[in-house]
Amino acid sequence: MFQRPRGTRDFGPDEMARRQWALDVMRKVAISRGFGEIQMPIFEDIELFTKKSGPGIVEELYAFKDKGDRDIALRPEMTAQVMRFYVNEMTSLPKPIKMFYFGPCFRYENPQSGRYREFYQFGAEIIGSNTPETDAEAVALASSMIESIGLDNYVIRLGYIGILRNMLRDLKLTEEKISEGMHYLDKNDEAKFTLFAKDNRLPDDKVRGMMSIRNMKGGIEILDGLEECSAKAYLQEFMGCLSLLGVKNCQLDLGIVRGLDYYTGMVFEIDAPALGAEKQVAGGGSYDLVPLFGGEQVFTTGFAIGFDRILIAREKESTITIDAGIDAYVVPMSDGTRKTAIELVAALRKSGLSVDFDIMRRSLSKNLKYAASIGARNVVIIGDKELAKGAATLRDMATGEQKEISMASIAEAISRKKQN
Amino acid sequence: MFQRPRGTRDFGPDEMARRQWALDVMRKVAISRGFGEIQMPIFEDIELFTKKSGPGIVEELYAFKDKGDRDIALRPEMTAQVMRFYVNEMTSLPKPIKMFYFGPCFRYENPQSGRYREFYQFGAEIIGSNTPETDAEAVALASSMIESIGLDNYVIRLGYIGILRNMLRDLKLTEEKISEGMHYLDKNDEAKFTLFAKDNRLPDDKVRGMMSIRNMKGGIEILDGLEECSAKAYLQEFMGCLSLLGVKNCQLDLGIVRGLDYYTGMVFEIDAPALGAEKQVAGGGSYDLVPLFGGEQVFTTGFAIGFDRILIAREKESTITIDAGIDAYVVPMSDGTRKTAIELVAALRKSGLSVDFDIMRRSLSKNLKYAASIGARNVVIIGDKELAKGAATLRDMATGEQKEISMASIAEAISRKKQN
Repeated sequence: MFQRPRGTRDFGPDEMARRQWALDVMRKVAISRGFGEIQMPIFEDIELFTKKSGPGIVEELYAFKDKGDRDIALRPEMTAQVMRFYVNEMTSLPKPIKMFYFGPCFRYENPQSGRYREFYQFGAEIIGSNTPETDAEAVALASSMIESIGLDNYVIRLGYIGILRNMLRDLKLTEEKISEGMHYLDKNDEAKFTLFAKDNRLPDDKVRGMMSIRNMKGGIEILDGLEECSAKAYLQEFMGCLSLLGVKNCQLDLGIVRGLDYYTGMVFEIDAPALGAEKQVAGGGSYDLVPLFGGEQVFTTGFAIGFDRILIAREKESTITIDAGIDAYVVPMSDGTRKTAIELVAALRKSGLSVDFDIMRRSLSKNLKYAASIGARNVVIIGDKELAKGAATLRDMATGEQKEISMASIAEAISRKKQN
Repeated sequence: MFQRPRGTRDFGPDEMARRQWALDVMRKVAISRGFGEIQMPIFEDIELFTKKSGPGIVEELYAFKDKGDRDIALRPEMTAQVMRFYVNEMTSLPKPIKMFYFGPCFRYENPQSGRYREFYQFGAEIIGSNTPETDAEAVALASSMIESIGLDNYVIRLGYIGILRNMLRDLKLTEEKISEGMHYLDKNDEAKFTLFAKDNRLPDDKVRGMMSIRNMKGGIEILDGLEECSAKAYLQEFMGCLSLLGVKNCQLDLGIVRGLDYYTGMVFEIDAPALGAEKQVAGGGSYDLVPLFGGEQVFTTGFAIGFDRILIAREKESTITIDAGIDAYVVPMSDGTRKTAIELVAALRKSGLSVDFDIMRRSLSKNLKYAASIGARNVVIIGDKELAKGAATLRDMATGEQKEISMASIAEAISRKKQN
């Protein structure tokens, strides 16, 4: 017996129907807000991903040489691909460009609850605009997509990476040192940051200031504790836009650093507390990546949503029920009625009903059992006697009620029941 | 500048909207006929694919070792995965099991028109039934899915692999020899088949008989030229079912061999003549694969549809036009009206309209140009003077007509236009 690879999943019809429902609902939200769907390949040159995420990412990559000796990797995320796509083909499109995408991504890591080696992500990007309402529109999309599947218990944490970075920059540190300092702040490692501050002779009051900003969390009122600066003005306007757009569950958290050097301003993370340790379901911000991929500098705000995780979180709140099943299942009772039965199937399908039929030539009782198992709402039984009168038996599977009905009116009867 | 890997594609919003439309339409057809959607991983143990397709497939595979030193390959097709999934988790489900699936597959071959290294396929399977109506239901699904996207110019060629194979079997050849003979018949290589017949001392009349069946093509009447046998009886009943199910464009072609040993009875291929040399868009039949993957023998009929190819064929007939665009684009004319504009965006979205707005704080003329480029059907202009009266300007982008309208009635006005 073959096993599927560790950390991957098969999805059966019930689970797939729920996933497909969620995917459709989320896709519709994005489209209705002016985001266009795009799609990129499953694999790329490995350098595309190391360029964005650094050489450290290689350890987590499914990487290989193709038969042309090119170094290829299954995508661990999709933002680098969007940047490549933008640089290659989209630079001359009218700005802002609003895009979203969905698909599987791959990371070689230890599988655990809500963490798979093959996982599914949504992503979105706004390219070419840098106003507070641009960033708010991105966060609003993320939260609306999450809410669209009925996940209510989530928290959006919002920050501004530029505040801490600008404070380090003001102290005349090199970019390398700034990255190092940001790394300690990201990990909230006070000991290492203090040591780093000492080594680089940073003034005590500035260090205390940064540690205090690192821990500023709460409503818009926490901004009162910040000196006047462009970041503060931005955050006030940005929080205002979020409120006007109806975005709920927002908290400021000026300690969000997101650990990656390419974020430039607003950063955000969305948590679903029901997931415990692996509670982050989305993250993003405004960033600067296009020049890395050979394009001219352009403002960019984007995010990713962990599709698997938000589904788990959603289903922890309540089960997703899909209106599955079919309108009718047709059973010929003999070889003599089979022809008529199949013709009826074709006619019912043509009238727009979802219809299946007995292809195994089984007994009525076996067929009724099977019809129940596939969620048929009606069973049409074509018996010799009824057929001689131009009729068949229509059985309502919910009530068990059966009645004789003329062949000509079966489609209408089933359609009428469907509307009620 | 990074290039995407050779033989792969990026899909922009317009193309993706057309693909997504086709995908949705085809998916709905399958579901409405009682097929449940499933999904399997992008990669598997390489042995899963060589087991089904033979070691020759390795040359075409994207194969690699994962970090746990396992031999892995990107899937070149999905049937082997369905078999694995069935053997692992579905053997006890009520029969027949009707399933379909969609996704990217990968083959390292020379890219050319309609042939990509990353290509998209639909597939479907019926497991556990072997009547003529089972096979007809599979072919009917394939043809309905193809017709659902508006592709009219296609031909279904139907055959029965068992006829030729049984004739070879009746001549007491080994399974290996039977495969060899079938291979020459598949390639329609009369010279090699004649040599093969001579080497194995096959009677002349049988050889002529097989070559003649190899070339039998046409309507159901060609079956008159066949001796009475179970295959003939099956084909007559099968063709009858196809007709009852309303399947059009059917031709018998008893020469279809499909080159693979696991087909057992009915085989079919669908061509879209508009595609020229690469005209085959679907293929399948009834086959015997489950035991190969460790399960008990079970009847199986299935097929694959080349999604990329049917889209190319469809678009050769006429362009797919998608009702894209958005209902409204909202433009604040000044800093003073921005708050109201964003509130209006939120309200219009809440009422179910698709709405975008100016996030770049541009002039009216730039905004009108942008609104046209994204297909906005209406533009709502929030000017200071109108706002003071509780009103805004509604511009119809198709006619250019503008009128003043009270803020409170904007949603209703746009919704009403949408319904007309």
